[in-house]
Amino acid sequence: MSTEQAAARRDIPDATVNRLPVYLRVLRKVATDGHTTISSETLAEQSGVSSAKLRKDLSALGSYGVRGVGYDVATLAGHITGALGLERQWAVAIVGMGNLGRALATYGGIGVKGFEIKWLIDDDPRVVGSVVGGQKVVHFDALVPHVDEGVIGVIATPAPSAQQVADRLIAAGVRSILNFAPAVLTVPSDVQVRGVDMATELQILAFREQNARGPQGDREMKELMA
Amino acid sequence: MSTEQAAARRDIPDATVNRLPVYLRVLRKVATDGHTTISSETLAEQSGVSSAKLRKDLSALGSYGVRGVGYDVATLAGHITGALGLERQWAVAIVGMGNLGRALATYGGIGVKGFEIKWLIDDDPRVVGSVVGGQKVVHFDALVPHVDEGVIGVIATPAPSAQQVADRLIAAGVRSILNFAPAVLTVPSDVQVRGVDMATELQILAFREQNARGPQGDREMKELMA
Repeated sequence: MSTEQAAARRDIPDATVNRLPVYLRVLRKVATDGHTTISSETLAEQSGVSSAKLRKDLSALGSYGVRGVGYDVATLAGHITGALGLERQWAVAIVGMGNLGRALATYGGIGVKGFEIKWLIDDDPRVVGSVVGGQKVVHFDALVPHVDEGVIGVIATPAPSAQQVADRLIAAGVRSILNFAPAVLTVPSDVQVRGVDMATELQILAFREQNARGPQGDREMKELMA
Repeated sequence: MSTEQAAARRDIPDATVNRLPVYLRVLRKVATDGHTTISSETLAEQSGVSSAKLRKDLSALGSYGVRGVGYDVATLAGHITGALGLERQWAVAIVGMGNLGRALATYGGIGVKGFEIKWLIDDDPRVVGSVVGGQKVVHFDALVPHVDEGVIGVIATPAPSAQQVADRLIAAGVRSILNFAPAVLTVPSDVQVRGVDMATELQILAFREQNARGPQGDREMKELMA
């Protein structure tokens, strides 16, 4: 990687980083459908962002479309993959083999370049040794000798166990955690946690739907007109 | 709701809306632990944001902490609940009763004020009528007469079925969709979709971990020093 590319990558705003995987997924779908170019309008629409935001995001990567043609799908996907650092292989450990862990292990969304689910972990001796999605479930201790490879930990346990699992992942050397348990985790400042849970997503959707068309909106208009 | 509150709510930036549920969850945990006030530093740290960002977000709600005391937990939780529109009850329909749908239906993260999982939906006749988390699985058609109540649809099917499920939800009148399938959905402009998938979250974590301490970072430094 050139220093220019490195500098460019470091300057990418957080909000743009959050949207890059979405663009990448759309580009891959478009490529699978047999298209080699895509207009910024189409890419923006399928990604659920405005054209202006898309163009700003992509110019932060140094990617510019051609007027009347749009973006070359393969080139742009390559830029984004490079910016996200996905040339490197990341190992993923999923902790908790209940419904959620089993769903994540077998769901297919993970089957993208750059990531490999290397460990399925559970501490229940009745679960250790069983096979989920063709892979054997192991005890937590199997993870520890391998963490220097750069492992991302995924917590799929119930909420009451989540902090303890996080502590064990961190003690093993994990520095990036994806938390699906509906619990707030306390972690050292050099550990990053991303939380995914349905309640948060529903709250955001509810806010937007209410403001877009809810009865409150009508009532507010009437109050304003009165 | 007063027109002032309504106006204030409409002016809340998207990025702030996305963080409000996180603050709310921290506040609820703090309240459960028996605390009645919280400093902005503690709230910021437990929410994973900077103090400056937190204060900016909360001032957008018209909530200001008291110097040396911080925020009153119950008051602030009330402000956020009001801003998010959670006084109203929302009905949730989960479509797809595989591992993921069953996990979402029983996981506990949804058990928050303002939301009720009212429908568990599957089209497989072997699954319809079975009980998940104490609730009976119904056929899609059971949802249709009830959509005017304001229903949020959750797609928990495999990727190849997701677009078809989205089309059926939208045809039934659903305007807010939470998509857990690793698929890009095409929807009309008056329908909002939020997508949650592990691949996207992992890509964001990988980007940040790599920039924080990865070998690329070291190499870039050496290039810069050479």
